[in-house]
Amino acid sequence: MIVALAGGVGGAKLVQGLAHILEPQELSIAVNTGDDFEHLGLQISPDLDTVLYTLARLANPVTGWGQANETWSFMQALEKLGGPAWFKLGDRDLATHVERTRQMALGEPLTDVMRDLAERLGVRHVPIPMSNDPVRTRVRTDAAWLDFQEYFVREQCRPAVLEIDYAGAESAEPSMELARALDSPALEGIVICPSNPYLSVAPILALPGVRDAVERIHPVVAVSPIVGGEAIKGPAAKIMLELGVEVSALGIARYYEGLVDILVIDRVDSALAPAIEALGMRAEITDTIMRSNADRIRLAGDCVALVRQGKP
Amino acid sequence: MIVALAGGVGGAKLVQGLAHILEPQELSIAVNTGDDFEHLGLQISPDLDTVLYTLARLANPVTGWGQANETWSFMQALEKLGGPAWFKLGDRDLATHVERTRQMALGEPLTDVMRDLAERLGVRHVPIPMSNDPVRTRVRTDAAWLDFQEYFVREQCRPAVLEIDYAGAESAEPSMELARALDSPALEGIVICPSNPYLSVAPILALPGVRDAVERIHPVVAVSPIVGGEAIKGPAAKIMLELGVEVSALGIARYYEGLVDILVIDRVDSALAPAIEALGMRAEITDTIMRSNADRIRLAGDCVALVRQGKP
Repeated sequence: MIVALAGGVGGAKLVQGLAHILEPQELSIAVNTGDDFEHLGLQISPDLDTVLYTLARLANPVTGWGQANETWSFMQALEKLGGPAWFKLGDRDLATHVERTRQMALGEPLTDVMRDLAERLGVRHVPIPMSNDPVRTRVRTDAAWLDFQEYFVREQCRPAVLEIDYAGAESAEPSMELARALDSPALEGIVICPSNPYLSVAPILALPGVRDAVERIHPVVAVSPIVGGEAIKGPAAKIMLELGVEVSALGIARYYEGLVDILVIDRVDSALAPAIEALGMRAEITDTIMRSNADRIRLAGDCVALVRQGKP
Repeated sequence: MIVALAGGVGGAKLVQGLAHILEPQELSIAVNTGDDFEHLGLQISPDLDTVLYTLARLANPVTGWGQANETWSFMQALEKLGGPAWFKLGDRDLATHVERTRQMALGEPLTDVMRDLAERLGVRHVPIPMSNDPVRTRVRTDAAWLDFQEYFVREQCRPAVLEIDYAGAESAEPSMELARALDSPALEGIVICPSNPYLSVAPILALPGVRDAVERIHPVVAVSPIVGGEAIKGPAAKIMLELGVEVSALGIARYYEGLVDILVIDRVDSALAPAIEALGMRAEITDTIMRSNADRIRLAGDCVALVRQGKP
């Protein structure tokens, strides 16, 4: 069994590839909930939904969030009523948030809600929330501390990030499903998806016991989300720059030093391999950009093979 | 100034006519909130919204609830997720409930929320909730006590009604706007719209002090919602039958005895006029079915004239 740690778009793509190769009992998909927030009275879990929609083949490939073939009547009407319109909620997407909120109000933990939603959508590989307790990523900008979605969506990542905090992480419990997977005798290794290390992977690692567990587990295979000095999607490169970190696969390697055994980097970054290996991890060179389903399956296949070959 | 007491469809139509004739300061529209309920975590006010949408020219003329030109993506997605789908919420309509719920969660009374929504929709005549406190109409059927929307929507009014209760009415305060209007020296009289007496008007009258105030005020002009022994819309006739009341304008007259000075009845019911007048109220005969806007304005004009002529 392999544990995948995933955030949004990049994570969801690799997870889809992994789910193509591995049976549900062979894959535990632990997803960041640090981006979750309450909005309009609704419980919104952006990364979980991106993974869920991707696995259900409902994801919007253009935006990287929400559903394809979406309609926007609700949002138009809400704007007309003067309601908060900065966070776009499509009509179909809204049903997910309303149903999640309804179930959670009845006392269902997020984990159980995601299992139910996945089943309803015919998704066999259930995305596991990293925790059922609230963890809220916040970023300190030159102006103020912002909640993650305020920074990410409302401010469109414009303010410079000076510091990142995962509020609640230190007292949140990892979900039982994640804790059990990390502790399972069947565990072969971990795949850290090409998600934003600071915004998507770090909140998972910040949960009590998770970083320690990942440090103990071998091999840990990570796919660099930085290719040719740029992020495939999202603000990873901008944030690394603002935090004074080298924006490259080497910068990613330094971030994951002591945690990752094998870093999968793109061919365009092959010149960085020696510097990465000098940090004590193996650099594996392949094509990492996932444009098609075939790309996702191939990269996932590489990761699974690396986990199995890299088994000490 | 005239106070109109209104429920859903029939009330909204006459209110629209009244709003065409009277300036906002000349008309106080008090609307039943006994049908309100919480569903999917949302505060839903069916009668207030029917009046609001009608005045905003957004109402769906076919269903009598919701908006015209509605889309249904949310509902389709919610059904797919196994969420409760018995109460149909259109995508645009949903924005009203989400925005109302959001504002009420911030502590805004329903009255203020309706004022804000009306302003946003360009509605000058603001529908006044009868109360900002929850009143919940419940019906006892042969099987059980049902919340109103369970009876009305989920069970499609199929069970026989044995008893009706307006839970919370005895301790709910009439909204300040309603109380002030009933107490205003400028008050010329009251128009009871052709809404269901048992389900739409009775909850308003059940609020502390309201029935007494209406009894003191003259003239009170009511329009019969029963025409030719049938209800124009909704379960009024069925309920009257089940409660053992004569299903006719005379049955309505008996219900409003001691409260109403002038009952407006349809030409088809003119033979009932002597029996109605024997109860001590005037029967005014006209065309009461509101098919067109012109019908609404004409009937509203009749009601306004009757209030002003009937002034003692």
